[in-house]
Amino acid sequence: MASRLLFCAAALALASGAGAAATGARASGAPLVRGVARRLAARMAAPGAAGKTVRVGVVGASGYTGAELVRLLLSHPQAEIAFLSAERSAGKPYAEVYPQFAHVKALPNLVKLEDASYDGVDVVFACLPHAMSHKLVASVPARCKVVDLSADFRLADIPTYEKWYNVPHGAPELQPEAVYGLCELNRAKVATARIVANPGCYPTAAQLPLAPLLSQRLILKEGIIIDAKSGATGAGRAPKEGTLFCEVADGLAPYGIASHRHLPEIEQGLSLAAGEPVMCTFTPHLMPMSRGIEETIYVRTAPGVRAAQLKAALQAQYANDEFVAILDGGAVPATRHVRGSNLCTINVFDDRIDGQAIIISCIDNLVKGASGQAIQNMNIACGLPEHLGLRGAPVFP
Amino acid sequence: MASRLLFCAAALALASGAGAAATGARASGAPLVRGVARRLAARMAAPGAAGKTVRVGVVGASGYTGAELVRLLLSHPQAEIAFLSAERSAGKPYAEVYPQFAHVKALPNLVKLEDASYDGVDVVFACLPHAMSHKLVASVPARCKVVDLSADFRLADIPTYEKWYNVPHGAPELQPEAVYGLCELNRAKVATARIVANPGCYPTAAQLPLAPLLSQRLILKEGIIIDAKSGATGAGRAPKEGTLFCEVADGLAPYGIASHRHLPEIEQGLSLAAGEPVMCTFTPHLMPMSRGIEETIYVRTAPGVRAAQLKAALQAQYANDEFVAILDGGAVPATRHVRGSNLCTINVFDDRIDGQAIIISCIDNLVKGASGQAIQNMNIACGLPEHLGLRGAPVFP
Amino acid sequence: MASRLLFCAAALALASGAGAAATGARASGAPLVRGVARRLAARMAAPGAAGKTVRVGVVGASGYTGAELVRLLLSHPQAEIAFLSAERSAGKPYAEVYPQFAHVKALPNLVKLEDASYDGVDVVFACLPHAMSHKLVASVPARCKVVDLSADFRLADIPTYEKWYNVPHGAPELQPEAVYGLCELNRAKVATARIVANPGCYPTAAQLPLAPLLSQRLILKEGIIIDAKSGATGAGRAPKEGTLFCEVADGLAPYGIASHRHLPEIEQGLSLAAGEPVMCTFTPHLMPMSRGIEETIYVRTAPGVRAAQLKAALQAQYANDEFVAILDGGAVPATRHVRGSNLCTINVFDDRIDGQAIIISCIDNLVKGASGQAIQNMNIACGLPEHLGLRGAPVFP
Amino acid sequence: MASRLLFCAAALALASGAGAAATGARASGAPLVRGVARRLAARMAAPGAAGKTVRVGVVGASGYTGAELVRLLLSHPQAEIAFLSAERSAGKPYAEVYPQFAHVKALPNLVKLEDASYDGVDVVFACLPHAMSHKLVASVPARCKVVDLSADFRLADIPTYEKWYNVPHGAPELQPEAVYGLCELNRAKVATARIVANPGCYPTAAQLPLAPLLSQRLILKEGIIIDAKSGATGAGRAPKEGTLFCEVADGLAPYGIASHRHLPEIEQGLSLAAGEPVMCTFTPHLMPMSRGIEETIYVRTAPGVRAAQLKAALQAQYANDEFVAILDGGAVPATRHVRGSNLCTINVFDDRIDGQAIIISCIDNLVKGASGQAIQNMNIACGLPEHLGLRGAPVFP
Repeated sequence: MASRLLFCAAALALASGAGAAATGARASGAPLVRGVARRLAARMAAPGAAGKTVRVGVVGASGYTGAELVRLLLSHPQAEIAFLSAERSAGKPYAEVYPQFAHVKALPNLVKLEDASYDGVDVVFACLPHAMSHKLVASVPARCKVVDLSADFRLADIPTYEKWYNVPHGAPELQPEAVYGLCELNRAKVATARIVANPGCYPTAAQLPLAPLLSQRLILKEGIIIDAKSGATGAGRAPKEGTLFCEVADGLAPYGIASHRHLPEIEQGLSLAAGEPVMCTFTPHLMPMSRGIEETIYVRTAPGVRAAQLKAALQAQYANDEFVAILDGGAVPATRHVRGSNLCTINVFDDRIDGQAIIISCIDNLVKGASGQAIQNMNIACGLPEHLGLRGAPVFP
Repeated sequence: MASRLLFCAAALALASGAGAAATGARASGAPLVRGVARRLAARMAAPGAAGKTVRVGVVGASGYTGAELVRLLLSHPQAEIAFLSAERSAGKPYAEVYPQFAHVKALPNLVKLEDASYDGVDVVFACLPHAMSHKLVASVPARCKVVDLSADFRLADIPTYEKWYNVPHGAPELQPEAVYGLCELNRAKVATARIVANPGCYPTAAQLPLAPLLSQRLILKEGIIIDAKSGATGAGRAPKEGTLFCEVADGLAPYGIASHRHLPEIEQGLSLAAGEPVMCTFTPHLMPMSRGIEETIYVRTAPGVRAAQLKAALQAQYANDEFVAILDGGAVPATRHVRGSNLCTINVFDDRIDGQAIIISCIDNLVKGASGQAIQNMNIACGLPEHLGLRGAPVFP
Repeated sequence: MASRLLFCAAALALASGAGAAATGARASGAPLVRGVARRLAARMAAPGAAGKTVRVGVVGASGYTGAELVRLLLSHPQAEIAFLSAERSAGKPYAEVYPQFAHVKALPNLVKLEDASYDGVDVVFACLPHAMSHKLVASVPARCKVVDLSADFRLADIPTYEKWYNVPHGAPELQPEAVYGLCELNRAKVATARIVANPGCYPTAAQLPLAPLLSQRLILKEGIIIDAKSGATGAGRAPKEGTLFCEVADGLAPYGIASHRHLPEIEQGLSLAAGEPVMCTFTPHLMPMSRGIEETIYVRTAPGVRAAQLKAALQAQYANDEFVAILDGGAVPATRHVRGSNLCTINVFDDRIDGQAIIISCIDNLVKGASGQAIQNMNIACGLPEHLGLRGAPVFP
Repeated sequence: MASRLLFCAAALALASGAGAAATGARASGAPLVRGVARRLAARMAAPGAAGKTVRVGVVGASGYTGAELVRLLLSHPQAEIAFLSAERSAGKPYAEVYPQFAHVKALPNLVKLEDASYDGVDVVFACLPHAMSHKLVASVPARCKVVDLSADFRLADIPTYEKWYNVPHGAPELQPEAVYGLCELNRAKVATARIVANPGCYPTAAQLPLAPLLSQRLILKEGIIIDAKSGATGAGRAPKEGTLFCEVADGLAPYGIASHRHLPEIEQGLSLAAGEPVMCTFTPHLMPMSRGIEETIYVRTAPGVRAAQLKAALQAQYANDEFVAILDGGAVPATRHVRGSNLCTINVFDDRIDGQAIIISCIDNLVKGASGQAIQNMNIACGLPEHLGLRGAPVFP
C-alpha cells in the first residue's frame, strides 16, 4: 500500500505536466519529419547517445509482439539484435517462423532461453505470457535493462495482481523497482529505470486521453465508460478456435465483459491521475481485423466544461509529443490511419446531453500498444532520441 | 402533438405486455422448429390465411435491402413478386444487377416505377432513400398495404422529422396513419395498419431490449449509452469513397457522433416506453464486415435491480417471440451467429460498478434490421403466420 | 481394377447424358421457384415420397460441415435430426458449440457415437476426418444409408487411396458398394446406393464443367490446369496456426502445390469421363474469406472448337439441373453469388490464343462442395425430390 | 518498329545478366540490414550522391499510389516533397484526403497542377490515369526526370498502345526516350533515363521470374499461363460499385479474362526476353484484401529441365538484388509476407506432369508494383543507392 501511495504521488506530478520537462533524454518535441539532415541533427541532440548501438535480446520472439519488435528494430538506426529466443521453435531460422523476414540475412536463429547469452546485451525485451515474466526478469543480469511486455509488473499493488491474474506474484521484491512505461506520462521515471513494465494495449489507448483530464479535474471520476474494440493480433498467435479466420471474419462480439484483466491496469492509471480511487466500465470487443484498437470513451465533464476545453488540455499536454496526435476540427480517429505506426490519435466531441463528452482514441495495438512503445521505452531508458526507429508512417490502405 | 400523446398511450400499453395478447394474427409462439408436419399445422393455425398468396411489389429494388427482400421472398411460401422497380437499372433483368439470382427463372425484370402496375398487388415494399418515400406512399392505391423501409414515416412528430432530416415532410396527412413496425412490441397496431414504418436497423437492436425495461422501470431513463457497430451494408450500394473495400477493411471508426439520424427514432421509442422524454447517447461505428449490428448498451438500474432481473423481464416479455432470443447463462451475443437470419439475440450482464448493467443486442441489419422485419410486418398486416419465410437459420461460418 | 473399369463404363454412360433420364426420383427439372403452390405440387410429384420423413444422424457434428448440415436440415421439410454425435463435445447442447442455433429448441444434445442410437434412423451423414470413416461406415446397420463426407470412399482404386492418404484402407470390402455422389452426373447410381461417397469440394467444382466436355471430346485430355481458390472453412474448425484470422486475412498463397489429395479424385472423375487416363495440374490457394471455391480452369480445345461450343454442351448437359447454372453471355461466376446456396455457376471464355479456353466454376464449398450436395444425395437416395431443403438463394451481400 | 528492335536488343543483353554490372549507381548487393553504421557506409558508397537531396513533385497525389509514394518518401533520407498536386482536392491539406498523415507537419497542401512550380524540382512522379500522362510528361521541364506510374509510356510499340488503350498516343515523339523501369532487369538504361515508364503491377510480378528463364531458354515460350490475384487497391480510390466493401469482401472472381490491358505489357517483356514474339494467357482475379499480388504461373520447361534448374537460374540472376528474394526449399511465397515492402518473393515447383513447372511470385502491388518501384527508379536515375527509403520490412500480421 505504501508503495502504491508513493507511486501515486510521483504520477500525479507527471500527469500534471511537471514530468514533461524533467528529462533531457527525450527528443525536443519535433514532429515527424523527413530528410536526413534533420534526422542527423536530432541524433546529435541526444547527448552522449550519438553513435551508440544498443544490443537487444528478445525473449519469446515467436509471438506477434516479438515479430513486431523485430520489424521495428530492423529500421532502428542504433539497435542491434543479439538474440531471439523461443522455446518450441528453438533452432529454427526466424524466417521459418515469420517468413516476412526471409530476405533479411543477418537475423540470428531462434534459441532456447537457456542457450541465449546476455553477454554484451543492453536491453532485454520480454514477450512472455503473464506469470512467466516474473521469473525471467529476476534472472536477467542486473546490468541489463528489461522492457517487459507482459502484465507481470504493471500493477504496483501485488494483491491486485494476484487477484486478477489468479497466480502468486513471482518476483514481489522487484515490483517496487518496476516503472510503468506509459512513455508520454512517465518519461522521467523510465529514463532511469532498469525494469520497465510496458503498458497493455487497451490501457495505453485509455490512459493517454483520460489521465490528463482526470488530473486536471476536467472530467469526473465517476461514470467513465470505455467501449473498446481490438484487432485479432491482440489474442496472440497460439491456435485457438475463437481466433480462427472463420470465427472472427464478418462479425464481432464483446468479451471479458466487466472482467477483462486490463481493467485494474486502467483503473490504477486513472486513480493515480485523479489522486483518488477511480472505477470504470470497460468492455472490449474482438473485431474482424488484424491490427488496431479503437476506444469510444464516454465521460462526464466537470460543471461547465465542454469538449473544446478537454481538447485544449490534451493539446497542451501533448504539444511536444510526436506520437500522440490530437486531431484537428471534427476529424474522427480511425484505426486504419494509425496502422503500423506508433501513433495514438485522439479527438473529443460534445454529446447532445449536457455534461457528457465522447473521446475517441486509436492506436495500433502491436505498435503503440506493445512493441512500438516498448522500443520507445528502450530509447528513453538508454538515452537515445525517443523517436528512433518509430517514425514509420501508417500503412494505409 | 396530440397524435404523439395518443401514440404514447397505445405504445405504453403494448410495452407493458398487454399488447402481446391483443392480436390473433400472430403465430402461437412456437419456437423455430423443423419438420413439415409442424409447419403445415402452423399454417393452418392462421385463420383465413391458409393458401392465400400475397402479391408484392418492391420499389427501389436495386439497393441491398431490395435484394434481401427478394432473397427472403423467394423462400416465402405465400408470397409472390409482382414487380421490382428501379430507376437507373430499369429494363435490366434483376440478375444483371444481382447475379446471385441468375438461376431464378421467374423473377420479373426491373421496371421504372411509372411502368409498374399495382394491379393485383397486395403489399408494396418501399426501399427508397428518405425524403422520397413520402411521395411514393401517397401515390400507392389505398387498397395496397405499404411497408416503408425508409425513415420517412418513423417519426410521429413531424417537426422532429424535419429537423433531423432537414427536409419538409412530404406527406404529413399520412403520418398519423403510419404504424411503427417494431413487430414484437407493436403487433396489434401493425395487424390493422395500412402504412407500416419499418424501423431502422440501429433502433431495432436498441429498442427490443430497452423498451420493456424502461416500461417496467427496471432501468433509469438517464444515462443510457448505446455504443453501436454496424456492417457496411448499412451504408448502401451507392458508390462512395468511404465504403470502398480498402477504406473499410482492417479498420474501424465511429461516425455520426451524437448526430446520427437514428437518434430521434431511438429516443421516440424509449420515451414511449418510459412514458416520459428520454435522451440517450448513441455512437455508431462502421465495421469491416458486410452484415450485422452489435450494440453494447450501458444502463443504470433501478435501486437494487441486478442483471438477472433485467434478463428475467426480457425473457418474460419475449417468451412467445421466436425471433427474439434471450441467451442462456453468460453466452455473449455475436453478430456472426445471427447472420442472414431474422433473429435478435440479447443478454444482460452486471457491471462491476453497482447500479450499472451492460446489455448486448445483435441483429443482422439487413434482415431483422430491414428486410426481414419488413416481411414480418407484411405477415402480420396480412394475417399470415408471422414467421413465414423467416425461419432460415443463421449462416455461420 | 475390375471394379474401376466397371465404374468407368457406368460413368461414361452417365456423362454422355443417358443417366439423366434414368431416375424418376428427381424433380422434373424445375428451376428454383417460389410460392407454396408450386412447392406443394413439386412435393406431390415425388411418387411415394410425399409426407415421408427421413430421420438422420450426423456423426462428427462438431465440424463446419456438420453445422452446415444442421442449418440446411432445419429447413428441409421432410428430414428430422435423430442424433448429433461428437466425441470431445459430447454432452453439450449443440448451441454451445454452434451458438447460431441458440434459438432452436428441438435440437438434440451432442452424444458420443457409442451412445447414439440408430433406431429409426434412415440416413447417417459421416463428417469425420479421412481414415476414420471406413470403420464407422462398416459399423452402421445395413438398413441405414450412409452419405460419407470424408474422402474414405471416393477413390475406387484402393491402392490409389492408400498412396495419397498414406493409410491402409479400412474397409476394402465396402469400397465396391460405394457410389461417387456427384449428383448431376451419377444420379441413377446414387438412387439405389447404400453408401454414397460425397465428392470433395474442389473436385465438385472441377468435374461439373470438365467431365461432360471430356466425355464429348470437346476438350483435350492433355494440359488441363485447374487454378483453385478456397475459403478458409475448407480447412475446418480444428485450431491451427495457419488458419488463424491474422494468418489468413489480407493475403493469399497457394498450398499443396502438385500434391493436394483432391488431385487423384479429380483425375479419377476426368479419366472416367474421358475413357482413358487423364492427368491434370491442380493448384489450390487459401483465400481471405470464409466460404466459396472458385476454379479458373485452362483447357485446350479439340480442333476448331470454340468457347461457344463448350458452353452449349454444358447448357445441354445441365438443362434440367437446377443447381448447375451456366451463366448467360459474358457474366463471370463469382463465389459471393453462390454463397450459402447449393449452386454451381459456370461460364466459358475464349482465350486470345487459338485452341485454348478458360472455364470459370464457382461453388460454396460448404454447400455444393459438402453438406448441400450430401443432402442432395440423401434426397436422391431416399426417393425425395432432389431439391428439398436446398433452394435457399445465395446470401449476398 | 526500329525503336522496338533496338529496345529488344538492349533488353536481351540485360536479361542475360550483362546489365547487372553495367551501373555503378546501385547498392553493392547488400541484403536488407539494420544498424546505422552500415547505412551510413552504404550512403558513402554512392559516389557523388551522398548528402544530395532530391526534390520531388507528385502529380495526381490523391490516389492510392500517390499516398504510398508519400508514405515511402517520408522515410527516404535524401528525398523531399516539393509539391503534391490533385485537381478535385486542390487547396486541401493532404491529411484531409489521407488522414494517416495528420501528424506530419511539413507536408505541402494539395495544389492544382497549374499552380505547382517545377522550380528546384528534380523528379516528377506522375500518378495519373492512362491517356493523361502523355500530355503531362510533355509539359514537364526537360531538366526534370519523370517517373510515370501510368501505362502511357510502357508499350514501346505505339499501335499496340493505341489498340489496347483505345486512345491515340498523346506524345509519340517522347516514346523512344522512355525507358521501361523494371529495375532489376533494366537498371543500366534507367540510370541515364529522363522518362521512366514504371511497370504495371501484374507485369512486374510476371516478368521478374519469367524474363530470365525465357532469355536463358529454360522454359518454352508456348503455353505460359499466368493466374493472377490482386488486392483491391489495384482498382484505385475512385468510387465504383464493384469495389465497395460489400462487393469485394468474402468472395472473389476473375475479371478482364483474356483482355486485361496488362497483357500486351507482359508479352512485350517476355518477347524481349525470348528474342521472339511470346503470347501468353493471363487471368487476373479481384481478391478480398487491400494489398498484394500473387501470380501462379504455369510454364513448360525445356527438355530435361526441372524446377531446381529454373530456381538456380533465378538465384543467380538476382543474387545481388535485395528486393527480389528466391525463397529457400519449399517455402511458398505469400502476399502477406511482402505486405508494405518493396520485395518480390519467388519460388519454383515441379508439377507432377513431366515438362511442366509452377512458379509462384508475390509482390505488394502498391510498393514493388507501383510506388516502391517508382522510388527505386528515382534512386537509380538520380545516382542514389538503389535501396534508399525502401528497406522497410513487410508489415505482418
